[in-house]
Formats: sequence, C-alpha cells, structure tokens
Amino acid sequence: MLSLKSRTESDWLARAVADPDAILLDHAHCERKAANNALRLLGEYPERAELVGPLCEIAREELEHFERVMAILQERGLTLVQQEPSGYQRRLFKKVRQAEPDALCDKLLVAALIEARSCERFRILGTAHPDPTLRALFLELLASEARHYAEFVRLAEGVVGREAARARLAHLAEVERRAIEAAKPLARMHA
Amino acid sequence: MLSLKSRTESDWLARAVADPDAILLDHAHCERKAANNALRLLGEYPERAELVGPLCEIAREELEHFERVMAILQERGLTLVQQEPSGYQRRLFKKVRQAEPDALCDKLLVAALIEARSCERFRILGTAHPDPTLRALFLELLASEARHYAEFVRLAEGVVGREAARARLAHLAEVERRAIEAAKPLARMHA
Repeated sequence: MLSLKSRTESDWLARAVADPDAILLDHAHCERKAANNALRLLGEYPERAELVGPLCEIAREELEHFERVMAILQERGLTLVQQEPSGYQRRLFKKVRQAEPDALCDKLLVAALIEARSCERFRILGTAHPDPTLRALFLELLASEARHYAEFVRLAEGVVGREAARARLAHLAEVERRAIEAAKPLARMHA
Repeated sequence: MLSLKSRTESDWLARAVADPDAILLDHAHCERKAANNALRLLGEYPERAELVGPLCEIAREELEHFERVMAILQERGLTLVQQEPSGYQRRLFKKVRQAEPDALCDKLLVAALIEARSCERFRILGTAHPDPTLRALFLELLASEARHYAEFVRLAEGVVGREAARARLAHLAEVERRAIEAAKPLARMHA
C-alpha cells in the first residue's frame, strides 16, 4: 500500500532502539523539514490553488508534531542541534524532472515516499520499541504520516493524471530503495 | 507602540484602494513568507528551545491567514503568481549582523518591524477602505500582526537583553523607514 520497494532490515531497529534519543532528535528535524517542504511547494507554485488547503493542513500538522517531539526532547534534557545530512533526501530530490508539470509531480511523489518510509519505520518502532510511551507516540505519528503519504499521491495524480503518477511513483520508489540503502548507517528515520 | 519611524503617506492608501486585488494578492504572499520566515528561524537555531512554541504558533497562524486570503482570491477569480520583489525585505535583512547572538536578535527584530508595518497599514485599510468585508478582514489581521510584533520583540529581548534589543529596534526601525521609502510605488503592503 505504501509503494515502497524494500523492507527495513532488522539492523536498523537495533540501531534505533540502542539510541532512542537519536531517533527523537532526528524526528524533530524530519517534522520541521516536512513543514518546510510543504511551504516551499506553496511558494514555488502560487498559481496552483488546489495545493493550498492540503499543503497548509500538512504543514500545520507537521508543526504540531514538531512541537510535541521538541517537548519530549526537553523532558529528556536533550538539545536539538544542526544535523549532518545523510544524503537520503538529496538522492531523491536529484531525480526530480525539470519540465513542468513533471517537476511538481515528482516533488509531490518524493514527499510521499519520504512519508511512506517514516510510516514503515514508525510501524516497526510502534511495535518493537521497548519504551511504551514512545511506542504510543510512534503509532500516532504513523497514522498521520500515512494520511500525508496518501494526500501527496492524490495531489500528484491531480497534476499529471492517475496512470502517469502511479507509473512515476513506482519508478521513484526504486530510487528511494537505493537512497535508503546508500544512506549512512545512522540512528535516523531515513538512514 | 509599534516602534515605526514613519507614518504611511496618503498616496499609499490611494494606490491600495485603487487596486484592492493587488493588495490581497500581495498579502497572500506576505502570509506565506511570514510562515516561511518563522520556519527558517527554527531550522537555523535548532538549539534555541525557547523559540519553538512562539514560532510554531506564529507559523500556524500565518498559514491560517494565508488560506483565508487564498479563499478570498478564489472567490474573486484571482490567481496568485510569482511576485517581483519590491526590495523592502532585502534592504532590511541586509542589515542583520553576522555574529551571534546579534544575528538572531536582528532577524527577530526585522520580523517584528515587517509585522509592525503590516499592522500600521491594516489599520489604515481597516478604517478607510470602501469595501466593508475587506475592512473587517483587515482589522482582524491587524490584531494578529500586532501580537506577532510584540512576540518577536519579546523573543529578541530574551536573546540579547531588554535594553540592547530596544536600542537595536530603534536603529532597525530607522532602516525600515528608509526601506519603505525606497520601495517601488506598487499596490503592496510593503511598498
């Protein structure tokens, strides 16, 4: 259902469980970047009125999650700092086509795939993480990421048509598989 | 109370009233850019946990306003397009000092002054605009911009201390006066 072309290996869960703080810190960045990405699309495509409602809604939800994760970081005495990129997002965005409306279609599908991967990994964490409070948080975030995934795919279908969007999604999912495999083995959502 | 060093001249109101669509289109951009600016600050200063609550709140409010203004644009059959910069924001951000924490202080105060100018002009539009529906909208937006202004100043005071922030605000307000005078005479909130 999530279009992903690979399942996360168990060594990722081991890394994530071994360093729960790192996963939370990384996830705070993910939420902020997702809100940012939605806003960037609104700035790049002001004439696309159909994007406004869905992207504003997504941005607001990501900001709420960002605040929640930041509150948990504070409770744990953790400070967020600038993060060295894992290369995952760069590898995905590099494949965005140049001409419109393909470029917009690809940006929406890349956003969808990033949400899909978060979703897949939140499901693992929500089941297998030893901390019950974090398990509950991860399962809640999972539901929201799944909605965002579906919304981004729906928007891409609106831009280039259902068939073209689905074919491109399958192609980009293959790019995503290689990007996640090539990312540095860090305790991160997309590494 | 708003720290501004100049009052808007009546020729601005004449331009704004003569082209109400242009003001609304411009204001949609302003709201999106304001949300963007709040998010950019969160990305640049991840370690500043005290910014998270206020800036997320501001970004969410700006996004709500953006959606409302976009809905009005749609009712009027207007399409938002990319906008040529008036030079106003560039002139302000150019004066941001490089070293921290002065840079953060300045970015917050520049954001405060942009809100202050919106606020001053919404007051004029909310009183003198011939369209009663738009008058009501402008007065409501004015209240929100005034809160954001106060919040940005408060955050800057938290960064460098009350006295230093107030002195710098007076200095940057002088920069803002020159920036608004130098902006191209367009039907815009900051021109």
